[in-house]
Amino acid sequence: MNIAFLGLGQMGIGMAANLIKAGHNLTLYNRSRGKAAHLIALGASEAETPAQAVQSAQFAFTMVAADDALETVTYGDHGILSALPKDAIHISSSTISVALSEKLTLAHAEHGQNFLSAPVFGRPDAATAARLAIVTAGPHHIIETAQPLFDAIGQKTFILGDHPPIANLVKLSGNFLIASVIESLGEAMALVGKAGVDLHAYLDMLTNTLFAAPVYKTYGALIANQNFEPAGFAAPLGQKDIRLTLAAAEHLGVPLPIASLLRDRFLTLISNGGENLDWSAISKLAAKDSGQP
Amino acid sequence: MNIAFLGLGQMGIGMAANLIKAGHNLTLYNRSRGKAAHLIALGASEAETPAQAVQSAQFAFTMVAADDALETVTYGDHGILSALPKDAIHISSSTISVALSEKLTLAHAEHGQNFLSAPVFGRPDAATAARLAIVTAGPHHIIETAQPLFDAIGQKTFILGDHPPIANLVKLSGNFLIASVIESLGEAMALVGKAGVDLHAYLDMLTNTLFAAPVYKTYGALIANQNFEPAGFAAPLGQKDIRLTLAAAEHLGVPLPIASLLRDRFLTLISNGGENLDWSAISKLAAKDSGQP
Amino acid sequence: MNIAFLGLGQMGIGMAANLIKAGHNLTLYNRSRGKAAHLIALGASEAETPAQAVQSAQFAFTMVAADDALETVTYGDHGILSALPKDAIHISSSTISVALSEKLTLAHAEHGQNFLSAPVFGRPDAATAARLAIVTAGPHHIIETAQPLFDAIGQKTFILGDHPPIANLVKLSGNFLIASVIESLGEAMALVGKAGVDLHAYLDMLTNTLFAAPVYKTYGALIANQNFEPAGFAAPLGQKDIRLTLAAAEHLGVPLPIASLLRDRFLTLISNGGENLDWSAISKLAAKDSGQP
Amino acid sequence: MNIAFLGLGQMGIGMAANLIKAGHNLTLYNRSRGKAAHLIALGASEAETPAQAVQSAQFAFTMVAADDALETVTYGDHGILSALPKDAIHISSSTISVALSEKLTLAHAEHGQNFLSAPVFGRPDAATAARLAIVTAGPHHIIETAQPLFDAIGQKTFILGDHPPIANLVKLSGNFLIASVIESLGEAMALVGKAGVDLHAYLDMLTNTLFAAPVYKTYGALIANQNFEPAGFAAPLGQKDIRLTLAAAEHLGVPLPIASLLRDRFLTLISNGGENLDWSAISKLAAKDSGQP
Repeated sequence: MNIAFLGLGQMGIGMAANLIKAGHNLTLYNRSRGKAAHLIALGASEAETPAQAVQSAQFAFTMVAADDALETVTYGDHGILSALPKDAIHISSSTISVALSEKLTLAHAEHGQNFLSAPVFGRPDAATAARLAIVTAGPHHIIETAQPLFDAIGQKTFILGDHPPIANLVKLSGNFLIASVIESLGEAMALVGKAGVDLHAYLDMLTNTLFAAPVYKTYGALIANQNFEPAGFAAPLGQKDIRLTLAAAEHLGVPLPIASLLRDRFLTLISNGGENLDWSAISKLAAKDSGQP
Repeated sequence: MNIAFLGLGQMGIGMAANLIKAGHNLTLYNRSRGKAAHLIALGASEAETPAQAVQSAQFAFTMVAADDALETVTYGDHGILSALPKDAIHISSSTISVALSEKLTLAHAEHGQNFLSAPVFGRPDAATAARLAIVTAGPHHIIETAQPLFDAIGQKTFILGDHPPIANLVKLSGNFLIASVIESLGEAMALVGKAGVDLHAYLDMLTNTLFAAPVYKTYGALIANQNFEPAGFAAPLGQKDIRLTLAAAEHLGVPLPIASLLRDRFLTLISNGGENLDWSAISKLAAKDSGQP
Repeated sequence: MNIAFLGLGQMGIGMAANLIKAGHNLTLYNRSRGKAAHLIALGASEAETPAQAVQSAQFAFTMVAADDALETVTYGDHGILSALPKDAIHISSSTISVALSEKLTLAHAEHGQNFLSAPVFGRPDAATAARLAIVTAGPHHIIETAQPLFDAIGQKTFILGDHPPIANLVKLSGNFLIASVIESLGEAMALVGKAGVDLHAYLDMLTNTLFAAPVYKTYGALIANQNFEPAGFAAPLGQKDIRLTLAAAEHLGVPLPIASLLRDRFLTLISNGGENLDWSAISKLAAKDSGQP
Repeated sequence: MNIAFLGLGQMGIGMAANLIKAGHNLTLYNRSRGKAAHLIALGASEAETPAQAVQSAQFAFTMVAADDALETVTYGDHGILSALPKDAIHISSSTISVALSEKLTLAHAEHGQNFLSAPVFGRPDAATAARLAIVTAGPHHIIETAQPLFDAIGQKTFILGDHPPIANLVKLSGNFLIASVIESLGEAMALVGKAGVDLHAYLDMLTNTLFAAPVYKTYGALIANQNFEPAGFAAPLGQKDIRLTLAAAEHLGVPLPIASLLRDRFLTLISNGGENLDWSAISKLAAKDSGQP
């Protein structure tokens, strides 16, 4: 297959490499040059503009940081929309707003192209190891067509509906659930920690009983160790995802009190010097409020 | 060993049976008679009062519903304190307040007896199957002495400190974390559910990725199925545990905003006819606030 | 003075009438025609477009419902920006976002025009009676020039700074404070009401002691009487103002937990059939949560 | 009248003095001696115990700090209950729990005595000036009998019901409303303050418009000036009143989200060194969370 891949951050590089390894012909694009050397050595080529990258592609993957970056590569004279062949498929794996996903669904339909949302769960090491979980939504036959590509980058695909923005909403809700775990663990550890309980023994108990899940192991260790630098996923990105969750919820008319609390936590963290910390650093605010150092 | 076992509710019956099966000599006590028949058939005997139950015991287990019940069996003319032999050990497995645990620690010391807090995680089926997780705190040598009994009723013992009330605080914090999962899942499902996502597909995605833990599987299924009756753990018990968590946190000077939210949720549920529902029914309040039936 | 007045809703009609009574020469514009008859009888004239309305004006007042309406009258071929004479002053009295106010401040400067934010506190009857409170911010000499007009429509002008968006932020914060009063009164009345206290006696006590302020009298009476229809200020407008407050606060990095709560209250109200009620109807949610009818 | 007055704190001294000035015969009691000198000079006498103070009284006023102090003076061998003549009236002006008020209502009835709750609004200067607002509940004829005493210490009496604990609930709800004003002003000032608005100009605008009430003037000035020492009403007392409000609300089944937030604010303030500050110091937490010094 001819695949365009746009967005070579920590996640995108691993995903693109796995598509190449699966035998596909990749054309790469990244806003800043110089990220693609390793992939070019594997056989990929590099384009000057998004339009050039997608002009003979059957699939265009996008994996960028936020709404504005995706709008930049999609719209405009050199954007995907203007150049992607008819019937080709834009697979959007970025964590973006539900509203932008709605807009892109319409825009691609107007251009005779297809649009699929396929955000992923997993950190950069999972992207490298082709162990991502893919959450997708879109027309059934389009998902079927894309399935071999999903198999090349991930270990499991979850189909949540036939309307692409559904997958973006589900992805946002997943990040909301992770942030809820961070906050609740932060509160629980502030409580038992102030009473003198050893936090590693506490975490060991939790993760060997009801809370034996990756999310508690990963984030529990970060919190118990106060290990917030370097950031695996920086606080402003967490803040953005909660903002997008709240925006989607407001549009749907769904109040989310824990998301409101998380919003306030991210604001507090970032307004007090935490903008370079991992998003799990919101956990230390409960301890701080309780007078712990 | 001669063991007194006080409190033959759904949990206590399973725990007592496993102690009998391990070869111990049990004397039982329950406030209302008639719960012990099955255990007497296994070889246990039954006492008329708490004092009579413990008078020649090396260990006295208590597994009752709440602070007031434990105070009733412990204090007074026919209470444990007055009759438990010197150097014997009171093992308290009930979910009680940190304050009562402090009080009992002192009271038993004054009577030349020992006190151990050993609350458990697990539902009645885990009690029957000797698969409880035991969270304990107390003097090291006392825990060592009790270890064979813990092995008879559970699959793993977690030692959290040498001061008994620590174990009660940790148990309460665990129930707080479970309730946080219920609330956050309730909010997330209200959000994606209002957008039309199938909740079972959603849960399947969560529990096969980051949230692959018993707590998400168990409660996620209850929420997705709106299966709140009969209650496995009734709403007023959940409310009680959050109240005790908040009381312990206030005493320690630790603000817990999610616990405050949970408090309000339980009040709302119970004030609107939900007192006989499972505590996981607080999850439906987010959906209700969003206008879903 | 030649004054253009754009936006003839309940508030704008009263304000425009008072400017005419003060001897000014008014040219009116409203999106839907037919609102101006009464004012034309007083001597005003009516324009076909915003541009036509302002083309020989020294001042252009705008008093419209929301950001999008103000953008419509300001930008575009027939907008204010394109036609307002150099050195003339756009006085924006609408409750709009801080971000739009920033944008208009820049846009008018680029066109050699002046921009003043002057949102008002007061209901339609106060507009009619020229008893509005005007909150303004902008360059000192521009405010001085506009002062006679403010005197014609209000009873007092408060100058909050020299940067126009400051006045919009202050106006939003004022509406946030009013909504906080509504919510806290709703909670207090849910509490004492469930205990059987007569709410009118309760309100009488409050407003004759520490809470002897118009905001408690006005909203207390609405709440005690459950008098939410017809809406003086509809719930979606309250929701909008809290949304704009939260957006401005997020931009400034200020967490506002009560505003987050208010956001959830408005979502709950509107998702449960309350979109036509007065914004003070959020007060009944606390009573409803407590099981009161 | 023969009046016993128990509790000579800042409030009690002013109230007792005004009763003496109105021509009554006062017998005083205070836990620590030496507070009464000034009142003895005005003609009062001093008793050694609560019982001695009330033994020939027609009225016994109590004005103490908290539940435990009131229990101490009421119960026991030397308590009011044992010595107050039949048909005499205990007027409780302390801010106490609804539960204790219920208990005292019953206890006095069992002793053939009367009980009236009459908590007051006002600071020490209002007590001295006989300008308190009195909130009372109890049997109508008992209130009538006490009315001349209320007139001697206050400027207005508000009758809220015939069951004494109602007055305690109303008093607590009033303090909750004051704390809500402090918190919402704190948030609003954190917002506009971070944008550079002068807080005194802001407060001047608020208190000359919708918020022209003593509570905004008094607390607004404290907040704008960051004037939290010495405490007029110390943070732990505010915390206590919110705790009692939440306890009464829990008993009635009424969730109060703003009260839950206030609870967390007081915990945060006191856990971070604020225990000697005025309760209005919770207002600075919003500013602190936003990164302001």
